Amino acid sequence: MPKIANIWLRSILSTIYQRGQMTRTEILQATGLNAASVSHALRYLLGTGTILKLGEIQSRGGRRSEVLKLNSDAAYFVAIDLEGTRIRIAFTNLVGDVRYRWEEDIEWGKPLEMKRIRYGVKMVLRNLRAPQRSRLVAAGISYPGIGDRQGSITAVNLGWQKVDLAGEMQEACGVPVFLEHSHRTCIIAERLVGCAQGSDNCVYVEVGQGIGASIISDGCHLAGRDRMAGELGHMVVDPDAKDRCKCGNYGCLESIASSPNVVRQYLADTKGQPHHLIGSKVGRVFERAQHGDKAALKVLDRVGSVLGIGLANLVNLLNPELIILGGDLPKGESVLLPRIKKELQRHAIRDFSEGLQIRVSSLGPDIRLMGATFLAFRNCLLYPQLLKKLCEPVIVVSSQQAVNLSGNTRTRLTAANVPIAAYREIPGNAARLERAKR
Amino acid sequence: MPKIANIWLRSILSTIYQRGQMTRTEILQATGLNAASVSHALRYLLGTGTILKLGEIQSRGGRRSEVLKLNSDAAYFVAIDLEGTRIRIAFTNLVGDVRYRWEEDIEWGKPLEMKRIRYGVKMVLRNLRAPQRSRLVAAGISYPGIGDRQGSITAVNLGWQKVDLAGEMQEACGVPVFLEHSHRTCIIAERLVGCAQGSDNCVYVEVGQGIGASIISDGCHLAGRDRMAGELGHMVVDPDAKDRCKCGNYGCLESIASSPNVVRQYLADTKGQPHHLIGSKVGRVFERAQHGDKAALKVLDRVGSVLGIGLANLVNLLNPELIILGGDLPKGESVLLPRIKKELQRHAIRDFSEGLQIRVSSLGPDIRLMGATFLAFRNCLLYPQLLKKLCEPVIVVSSQQAVNLSGNTRTRLTAANVPIAAYREIPGNAARLERAKR
Repeated sequence: MPKIANIWLRSILSTIYQRGQMTRTEILQATGLNAASVSHALRYLLGTGTILKLGEIQSRGGRRSEVLKLNSDAAYFVAIDLEGTRIRIAFTNLVGDVRYRWEEDIEWGKPLEMKRIRYGVKMVLRNLRAPQRSRLVAAGISYPGIGDRQGSITAVNLGWQKVDLAGEMQEACGVPVFLEHSHRTCIIAERLVGCAQGSDNCVYVEVGQGIGASIISDGCHLAGRDRMAGELGHMVVDPDAKDRCKCGNYGCLESIASSPNVVRQYLADTKGQPHHLIGSKVGRVFERAQHGDKAALKVLDRVGSVLGIGLANLVNLLNPELIILGGDLPKGESVLLPRIKKELQRHAIRDFSEGLQIRVSSLGPDIRLMGATFLAFRNCLLYPQLLKKLCEPVIVVSSQQAVNLSGNTRTRLTAANVPIAAYREIPGNAARLERAKR
Repeated sequence: MPKIANIWLRSILSTIYQRGQMTRTEILQATGLNAASVSHALRYLLGTGTILKLGEIQSRGGRRSEVLKLNSDAAYFVAIDLEGTRIRIAFTNLVGDVRYRWEEDIEWGKPLEMKRIRYGVKMVLRNLRAPQRSRLVAAGISYPGIGDRQGSITAVNLGWQKVDLAGEMQEACGVPVFLEHSHRTCIIAERLVGCAQGSDNCVYVEVGQGIGASIISDGCHLAGRDRMAGELGHMVVDPDAKDRCKCGNYGCLESIASSPNVVRQYLADTKGQPHHLIGSKVGRVFERAQHGDKAALKVLDRVGSVLGIGLANLVNLLNPELIILGGDLPKGESVLLPRIKKELQRHAIRDFSEGLQIRVSSLGPDIRLMGATFLAFRNCLLYPQLLKKLCEPVIVVSSQQAVNLSGNTRTRLTAANVPIAAYREIPGNAARLERAKR
C-alpha cells in the first residue's frame, strides 16, 4: 500500500465527521481528492477500524455503494464545561456521547478552585478501561468569560482572573488540551449535530446567566479583534430603562432578559405576596407564566419584547438565515418565543425576517460537552501526531456488532468467549490479536 | 523565458496592489511563490510595463533591492457610483485616480432613467485617446439598495425595482462589468488606500441619506444570507422615540441620525424662526452648531447620542479594531465625533472600546469611484482573459519618467521629439515601437 498522506486522512475524516455517514462516491466529491487517494485512505481507515462499513445502498446506475461512518469508539476525549452555575466534566467518544461524567454545582461568582476541576477529571478518568485510556487523544474545554491566546481565563462566574486553565488541564488530563469560548462550543455542536446542520450564516444566542451570541458568517466564526465578538448582552435595547446592568450601564439587554434578572423583576413585582421563589430559578417564573400568573406574564412580556428588539438589531446587522436560542430559554419556549418573534418581525427588515428561521436548541445541557469534544476532534486533525493517534488500529468487538475479521480470528475470539471486549490489532500483523486488558 | 502561470501574475499583482510598492524580497515573502517563478513573472511584468521599477533601496546585508510598483496607466476602468443624490461616472486608472468624470444631481426617490447613465458613460468615454481605449479592461459599479446575483438592482433612491443594471452597463461600456453594494465599495477603498489599510476587523459606517455598515471580519466581508448584511440604520436605539422611520417603525437609528432626519429635527425645533434652511443640507446644520446655534446643538446632542449607542451595540457584537465613519458625517466631525465617542465609551464593553480606533473617512466624495475601480481590478485578476489584458505590453513615455529602453529606441524617441506620448510595444519585437495615436 502506498504511503497515506495526512491531508487525505484529514479531508476524509473531517468530511465524514460533518456528514455523519457517506458513500465512497460522496466522499470523493466532497473532498475533491483523486479516486486513488480516497481508495487508499479508505482501505487504510477501514483496516484500522477508524471508520466502519455501515452497509450498502443502491446507487445510480444500479451499482451498489458502501456507506461508511466513523467508528464512534475510535477515539476518546475529555470534555469540560465551565459555564453557568454547574461544572461538567465528561469522558466522551468520538461523536460526543458522554461515557462517564462528573458534575458539581458551583456558586456564581465564588472563586472556583482548580483542585475541584482536577478532582473531577480524576473521577472521570478513574473509570477508564485500558483500551479507552489508550485511545484518549485530547481534551476540549468550553470556558466562559475571556480567554487569551495562551489559555489563561478571566471569568466572573468562576471568580477567575487570568487563571492558566490550559496548563493545569493539560497536566490533569495528560493529553493536549484545546479551549474555546462556551458560546462557540455551542454553535460547533449545533452545526454538527443540532439544528444548524448545513447552515453557513447562523447565530447561536445563549440566554441564561448572561446573554451572548456566537456568529457564523459564510461558514466561519466571527471572532473580532480579541476573538471576543458576540457580546449581545450589553446591547442597549432601552436607554430609558431603570434596570442597572452589572457593567454599570442601564438598559442593556442582559439587565432585563438574563435569567437572574427575570427572577429579580418577578420578585420585585410580586413583593409582599407569599411565595417561595427567592433564590429560585428562572424555570419557576416560566412555569408560573404558563399557568397564567399575571405578574410572571407581565415580566415575560417585557423580556420577550427586548429580546425581540435585540435579535432584530442583530438580524439587521448580520442578515443570518437561522437563529438558535439556547441556555435557559428553551424552558420558557411556549411563553417567550411568540413574544420574541412578534417583536422581531416588527423591527427586522422584511427581506431579512422573511425566511429567517428561529429555532430553540434541543441539544440539552450536554451541548457544550459535545461542542468541546468536536473542538478537540477538529484540532486533532491538524496535528500530525494526534491525527496518527486517531487513526491507530482498533477493533472493538461487541456482541451487538458484526465484526469483520478473518475466519480464523473469529473462531479464536468466539472460543475465548469474549462478550464485549476491546481488541487491539498489532500493526503489520492483522492476524495476531492481542487481548487488551480491560 | 518559461511559460508564465496565471497564478504567479495573480499573486504578484494583487500583492503589489495591496501594498503599493514592494521589493523583490517582500514579494517573494508575501506571495509564498518560489524564487524562480517570482523572478520570471517580474521580468515579464517589467517587460510589458505592467509594473515599474521605482528605484533601489539598501536592503539588509548591504545588497541593493529594487522597489517595484504598479504602472498606474497599465489599465483603465469605468467606475460608476449611484449612491445618494448625485450619480458619478468616471474613467479611472489602475489605482483609482479619476481621469475624466461626469456627474449629475438626481432627485431622491425619483426614477432615474437608464439612458441618463448611458449618456454619462458615453460622455466619459468620448474623451478617451486610442491607447486609453485599448487598455480599458472592465467596469466597476457601486450600487445602493439591493442587488441580486444576476446584477438586478432594487433601490429606493433611484426609484428602481429589479433593474438590469449589469446588462445595461455591459452594453454601454463594452467591457465586463462588476457590481458591489456601495457600503462595500467604500470599505474596499478604505482598506486599499484609506485609513483601514492593514486592518482585518473593521467596520465602515455610512451616515448620509441612510445609515449602513460594511463589516470586515478576519479579513473577509460579512455578507449574510442574502449578501445584505449591515443594515445598521434600522437598529432600534430608542424604542420610545416618536421618530417614524421610512420602514414604518419608530426609534430606528436612521429615523433620528440620517442626514434628512437631522435637518427635519432642526427645522421642527426652530419652527417660526426666520431662516432659510428648508430644503437645505445637513452641512448647514453642522455649520450652525459649530457657530453655537443652540437648536442645532440640541439636535446634534441627540444624534451623537443615538449614533454612540448604535456603534456601541455594533462594537459589542463584532469586537472590531476600527470604525470608519463616512458619508455626510465627516462634515460634522468637530461637533458630532466627541458626542459619539462619549456615548460609545459609556455603552461598549471596556475591553472592546479600549484600543478601538474611530476614524473619519478622508477619501472624500470619490471614495466609491475608487472602490468600484479596485473591485473591477480584483475581479480582473480572476478571469484569465482579463488578466491577460491587464498584462498586455505597454510603454508609457512621459517627460517626468525615466524610460528603460535600449539605446537605439531611446535615440529614436528623442529624435522624434515626443514629450508625453503613449507607446505600445509590439509583442516579440522590443525594438520596434509603434507610435500610438492620442
